[in-house]
Amino acid sequence: MPTDDHGRTKIYRDGPGDLRVPMTRVTLEPSPSTNEPNPPIDLYDTSGPGSEPDRGLPALRSQWIHGRNDVQAYSGRGRDLADDGRSAVRRGASSLEWKGERREPVRSTDGRPVTQMHYARRGIVTPEMQFVAAREGCDVELVRAEVASGRAIIPVNVNHPETEPMIIGRAFLVKVNANIGNSAVTSSVADEVEKMTWATTWGADTVMDLSTGDDIHTTREWIVRNSPVPIGTVPIYQALEKVNGAADELTWEIYRDTVIEQCEQGVDYMTVHAGVLLRYVPLTAERVTGIVSRGGSILAGWCLAHHEENFLYTHFDELCEIFAQYDVAFSLGDGLRPGCLADANDEAQLAELQTLAELTERAWAHDVQVMVEGPGHVPLNLVEENIRLEQDWCHGAPFYTLGPLVTDIAPGYDHITSAIGAATIAMHGTAMLCYVTPKEHLGLPNRDDVKTGVITYKLAAHSADVAKGHPGARAWDDTLSKARFEFRWEDQFNLSLDPDTARAFHDESLPADAAKTAHFCSMCGPKFCSMRISADVRDRFAKDGMKKMSETFVEMGSSVYLDAQDAAAGAKDAGS
Amino acid sequence: MPTDDHGRTKIYRDGPGDLRVPMTRVTLEPSPSTNEPNPPIDLYDTSGPGSEPDRGLPALRSQWIHGRNDVQAYSGRGRDLADDGRSAVRRGASSLEWKGERREPVRSTDGRPVTQMHYARRGIVTPEMQFVAAREGCDVELVRAEVASGRAIIPVNVNHPETEPMIIGRAFLVKVNANIGNSAVTSSVADEVEKMTWATTWGADTVMDLSTGDDIHTTREWIVRNSPVPIGTVPIYQALEKVNGAADELTWEIYRDTVIEQCEQGVDYMTVHAGVLLRYVPLTAERVTGIVSRGGSILAGWCLAHHEENFLYTHFDELCEIFAQYDVAFSLGDGLRPGCLADANDEAQLAELQTLAELTERAWAHDVQVMVEGPGHVPLNLVEENIRLEQDWCHGAPFYTLGPLVTDIAPGYDHITSAIGAATIAMHGTAMLCYVTPKEHLGLPNRDDVKTGVITYKLAAHSADVAKGHPGARAWDDTLSKARFEFRWEDQFNLSLDPDTARAFHDESLPADAAKTAHFCSMCGPKFCSMRISADVRDRFAKDGMKKMSETFVEMGSSVYLDAQDAAAGAKDAGS
Repeated sequence: MPTDDHGRTKIYRDGPGDLRVPMTRVTLEPSPSTNEPNPPIDLYDTSGPGSEPDRGLPALRSQWIHGRNDVQAYSGRGRDLADDGRSAVRRGASSLEWKGERREPVRSTDGRPVTQMHYARRGIVTPEMQFVAAREGCDVELVRAEVASGRAIIPVNVNHPETEPMIIGRAFLVKVNANIGNSAVTSSVADEVEKMTWATTWGADTVMDLSTGDDIHTTREWIVRNSPVPIGTVPIYQALEKVNGAADELTWEIYRDTVIEQCEQGVDYMTVHAGVLLRYVPLTAERVTGIVSRGGSILAGWCLAHHEENFLYTHFDELCEIFAQYDVAFSLGDGLRPGCLADANDEAQLAELQTLAELTERAWAHDVQVMVEGPGHVPLNLVEENIRLEQDWCHGAPFYTLGPLVTDIAPGYDHITSAIGAATIAMHGTAMLCYVTPKEHLGLPNRDDVKTGVITYKLAAHSADVAKGHPGARAWDDTLSKARFEFRWEDQFNLSLDPDTARAFHDESLPADAAKTAHFCSMCGPKFCSMRISADVRDRFAKDGMKKMSETFVEMGSSVYLDAQDAAAGAKDAGS
Repeated sequence: MPTDDHGRTKIYRDGPGDLRVPMTRVTLEPSPSTNEPNPPIDLYDTSGPGSEPDRGLPALRSQWIHGRNDVQAYSGRGRDLADDGRSAVRRGASSLEWKGERREPVRSTDGRPVTQMHYARRGIVTPEMQFVAAREGCDVELVRAEVASGRAIIPVNVNHPETEPMIIGRAFLVKVNANIGNSAVTSSVADEVEKMTWATTWGADTVMDLSTGDDIHTTREWIVRNSPVPIGTVPIYQALEKVNGAADELTWEIYRDTVIEQCEQGVDYMTVHAGVLLRYVPLTAERVTGIVSRGGSILAGWCLAHHEENFLYTHFDELCEIFAQYDVAFSLGDGLRPGCLADANDEAQLAELQTLAELTERAWAHDVQVMVEGPGHVPLNLVEENIRLEQDWCHGAPFYTLGPLVTDIAPGYDHITSAIGAATIAMHGTAMLCYVTPKEHLGLPNRDDVKTGVITYKLAAHSADVAKGHPGARAWDDTLSKARFEFRWEDQFNLSLDPDTARAFHDESLPADAAKTAHFCSMCGPKFCSMRISADVRDRFAKDGMKKMSETFVEMGSSVYLDAQDAAAGAKDAGS
């Protein structure tokens, strides 16, 4: 068991059968004054088993997938260099060709669904469900029941056996997605793989590859083969590349081919903007920022150009049939989400949400897992309405929101403007939060931005877990606070979401090692430390004496006396 | 009128008489496609008139103060080198002795109150109230009525004539306080003055000087003389210095002398922990983090050592009489605030709040202005209860909260954990937010941390203004979003809370000047830009056509058709 430099060890929690569920164990020092031991705390771990990036991760789920005897390998649609875009065709090769193992894709043997929802509805408990239950520390029946009802999803494409199963649903820990991906302007395959690993190191529960630049197929191959978490995509981006960016030339056939390409690679969930209906487009005409979703605007452009209904809507059932054969989950895209406060909760947004509700039911009829995407930019007082309507209309399908940002005036700080909305909407039931980085609206996130975005969203998600009273969530806070009160600085750092930053900030003022065991810090200096004074106060009054005072107070009716004389007298009695 | 490099100009809004109220005007470019002009937007400005730090600011309010004929100059308590602590006595001098003008202190001529509350209750509209009304863009009668009722305060010590009056109350814009101050471990006078100026440059509405190290008196002198915003302090810190840190040796006389020293210097509001009653101390014994307020722990220690009631409580009326003569406002300290989630909204905290309610009424009986301090660390689901109880028990006195932090697990990111709580509690009525910097719990904030803290809290405060529907608040968001949609990059930067960071982040990916007028950005590249596609969609359908489609939709009942055929048919009709 490797120990890193933060008092952290990766341990494995045993599940049924040979399940081994990874956790991060933080070992703690004893309390300094009493020398009482402090038990270690085990935290949810998303970092995966680790590997050389050019080899990929071990196929953890291979036996589980094949053990069900409902999938078979097949030759697949075949590789086309055009999948990597025009420059790859021109060069005759894609960048950083994948050199690791190439498995043949698998899919349903007989066309019947191979989805976790399908199994759950038939009362089958899969190893994936058991893994999730052990990971969440809950009963596996809760997992099965929530997946069966559609209130939770386990995104696990049969072609992504490397993934460690996780669950997205309001009855479970709130999850965080990190977006990565190149664009025509910046970044490379290696950068994106590194960002993915970096994001999961810091706690990203899923990663979306939103690449729109060169080498889309190859970038995705590297990412999926190295990802211990589910990978999401927006297939319309690649489809548009295949028609050289001319939205008018998109067809269902090109889109369908792209989806199958990605199903075979192992993408676990796909954003599909099937709710952008032709008749909703005019509802955006008077908006301050129109349509801000890339997918939404592409499909709106297509609908208007052809005067036809969105082909994703008209072919939705075919899409369901494909997804069911690989267990790809829908992330029903909110193509008409508001791009600013002024457009929040407007007719266009809510009309689309009603269509997403209809599509949810249609997907469920195919046993296909679904989550529903949400905004965006919403004033804080209107945030709750979004989750309330989504849960109501979409029958409890997991909500997956981007923030929302609660003000538009702080570019450069939109990880914060959106964390405010994210914590709030998650407290009210949103199951997964899509992170926003400091670069939102301004540029592509670099490595530091990815970390800042993930940590910011982990704290927002955890705040919501605590606010929801999720079992065990607050234990983490209490453990860290006890360490803080007892001046166990090393424990305080090690228990932090970001131990490196906590330690670095402390050391800026007090770098000496001795300061790590000092009963004060640089904010107040040794004499004024309230923690020390407070501990002294507690020590001075032996616990029994304090308890007695407290009991006396309770006997007096616990009331707060507004008369100073009575109060002082009562307190004197209690203290004497 | 100086123009800085962000399209910003300081302008002055004229008020009654010779009032000139500073605003920041942001000049905007015309819309690129239509060439329609975009009117400038005027933003609240806290940066002050500017001056050489060693000269101090002009005494803006001198004539207003003396024009009321109710104060007189007097010799004052006299300077004592011990006010700057033992090292100053040892050296025979304080650091950076104040070289600017030294005015004799003034106070009430006849002992009657000279407070804004006193005037407001007698129906007198002061220039301070007029200044505030012009600054907030509201009717001056609202200002007077809110101050008279105690629901708002205008902290303006008669010995701080340099201040530009501002108001703290739930009917007005949510305000932000920035804490600065040296400690025994770090920083210098010059550093603290620079931090104060830096904080007000970025929007701090008040600044608290929480110094506990050397040269407390002199540091404060420099800060007050240079501050265009109200200055707050916690006098118990300096009083404790005067007894060499031995809390047991504190006396009412030493504290009283310190308060008068600070009244004469011009401190506008003081945190007074008069609610930490002897009988409440035992209620903290079983807490995870005991008493975390420095003032609270000092007074708790004193109460227990002497077995007597808190001398700030027993002498509270004398304190009111002093404050009334200088117009110093109470910030009733929450010495028993929770220091972690586990201790939130507990008996100790709420018992103290009931005492703060009693003290509020006692201060009001002296026409002394009051705000009430609040936590701290509170789970998100319990945040609202804090403001609800405070408003209810304290008869609407302005609430002034530190965050609250909604989780304890993210040291290094507590500006964010607390901004979530801050935005939420401000939406429900908190009048002023005390900022938290990334260094909270870890060290003293440096210049960058101060800026990050202020910007983070400005965005939280503004989010709350928008959520409350404060008149005009959302115009700022809408103006920026329109600029974003129209690719007016310079306008987008200039309208940002932090133009430097917004511009720098953009330029990391696309540094060329040409990119500032480009109709795309580095996130998506030129081809995929949803903003561009959306604008194209809008352009393609002339506005009337779009409106017609929209009207047709409304005529059809605005309902969302669940039948795809009907839907497509309806849309075709509408679009044709």
